[in-house]
Amino acid sequence: MESLRLHYAPDNASLCVRLALEFGGIPYTTALVDRANAAQRQPAYLAINPAGLIPALDTPHGPVFETGAILLWLADRTPGRLFPAPDAPARGQALSWLFWMANTLHPTLRSLFYPDQYLPAAPASLRHAARHRIATHLDLLEDAWVPDHVLQMCYLAPMLRWPALYGGQTDWYDLGRWPRLHLFAQVFEAMPAAQAAARAEGLGPTPFSAPHPANPPEGRPI
Amino acid sequence: MESLRLHYAPDNASLCVRLALEFGGIPYTTALVDRANAAQRQPAYLAINPAGLIPALDTPHGPVFETGAILLWLADRTPGRLFPAPDAPARGQALSWLFWMANTLHPTLRSLFYPDQYLPAAPASLRHAARHRIATHLDLLEDAWVPDHVLQMCYLAPMLRWPALYGGQTDWYDLGRWPRLHLFAQVFEAMPAAQAAARAEGLGPTPFSAPHPANPPEGRPI
Repeated sequence: MESLRLHYAPDNASLCVRLALEFGGIPYTTALVDRANAAQRQPAYLAINPAGLIPALDTPHGPVFETGAILLWLADRTPGRLFPAPDAPARGQALSWLFWMANTLHPTLRSLFYPDQYLPAAPASLRHAARHRIATHLDLLEDAWVPDHVLQMCYLAPMLRWPALYGGQTDWYDLGRWPRLHLFAQVFEAMPAAQAAARAEGLGPTPFSAPHPANPPEGRPI
Repeated sequence: MESLRLHYAPDNASLCVRLALEFGGIPYTTALVDRANAAQRQPAYLAINPAGLIPALDTPHGPVFETGAILLWLADRTPGRLFPAPDAPARGQALSWLFWMANTLHPTLRSLFYPDQYLPAAPASLRHAARHRIATHLDLLEDAWVPDHVLQMCYLAPMLRWPALYGGQTDWYDLGRWPRLHLFAQVFEAMPAAQAAARAEGLGPTPFSAPHPANPPEGRPI
């Protein structure tokens, strides 16, 4: 595997990518994006990801951005280890849920965490609606999702963590309401690769099933 | 290529998939999803896509859902023809924009077309904000996107069409404001594969650069 560098911020969407790197046993280095100074919207970072979002991954073939894209790119480089290979019968279902996470769950979370970007005139009302939508999304996963591919797990686990910590009032959220998802979070976070990722960002021993605020060695969660 | 069946509605996100099927020269059949009777939320369809969204594709390995997932699945079956192959140097950038379309542009369009689903208390205000966000998204594409992969084009072209027709008031939208995107739409829609897809859904001769309301042979746009 060639040299890879992850542009990250602690407890950001970049955590999904860090998890995949750790689970894949893929060597990488990191570069902190200083969100306190909005470095992700400065020219140096926009040259890497013109959309100004974290994460991005430097690769020998140039930068890759968007969480789902980076995850799938990593899977392509470790055929069958993190995700069904392109010719595997399970590929289609696996892609379906990966894109559902990218297209539905992740955007709804973003509207909870950054409502000003979506509805500057009434961010509180959008937050309120987003909480309801997230619950509906998790109901669907609880019923229908089969956690049989590591790549999806790496995308999902942080999304089960964040509502407990970010987006204003958090007491609406209790992962225990979704027993299968809660058990998934417990099993997943016990893995050495997940523990390594959690340590690197100061997330504590139960980052997904019973989250505590991050205390990262560098940078700060926002 | 094995037998494929596209669950579609005219001028819906399924159009992106139909375009890719046509450009890939991939044989397929279609099954109309009767949106007038909310068939996408009935048990028969939920067994295909539990998220209740159109499109879905029946394949010999089971159903695939989510526009981006189906597109990428089709690309995997026609290596290098619609999208860079998994080991190609261009794969990372191509995935990045594909996921950006799925994660950013497409969800913003959905909030414009179906604001009730996102903010039942004040759908008009969300629509207003979505129009501004879409313009910002298109500014980014106009500056940064290089249209060098057919799969991205199949995802993007319908998204350049719909704001001219759906989402309440449409006079805010003029694709001519983004000259590169407008030229892309003209070039793309002139291709025989695009014309075939447009004919199948009654979209007229200039479906992307100068859209007119759809007049489909079956079903109706909503």
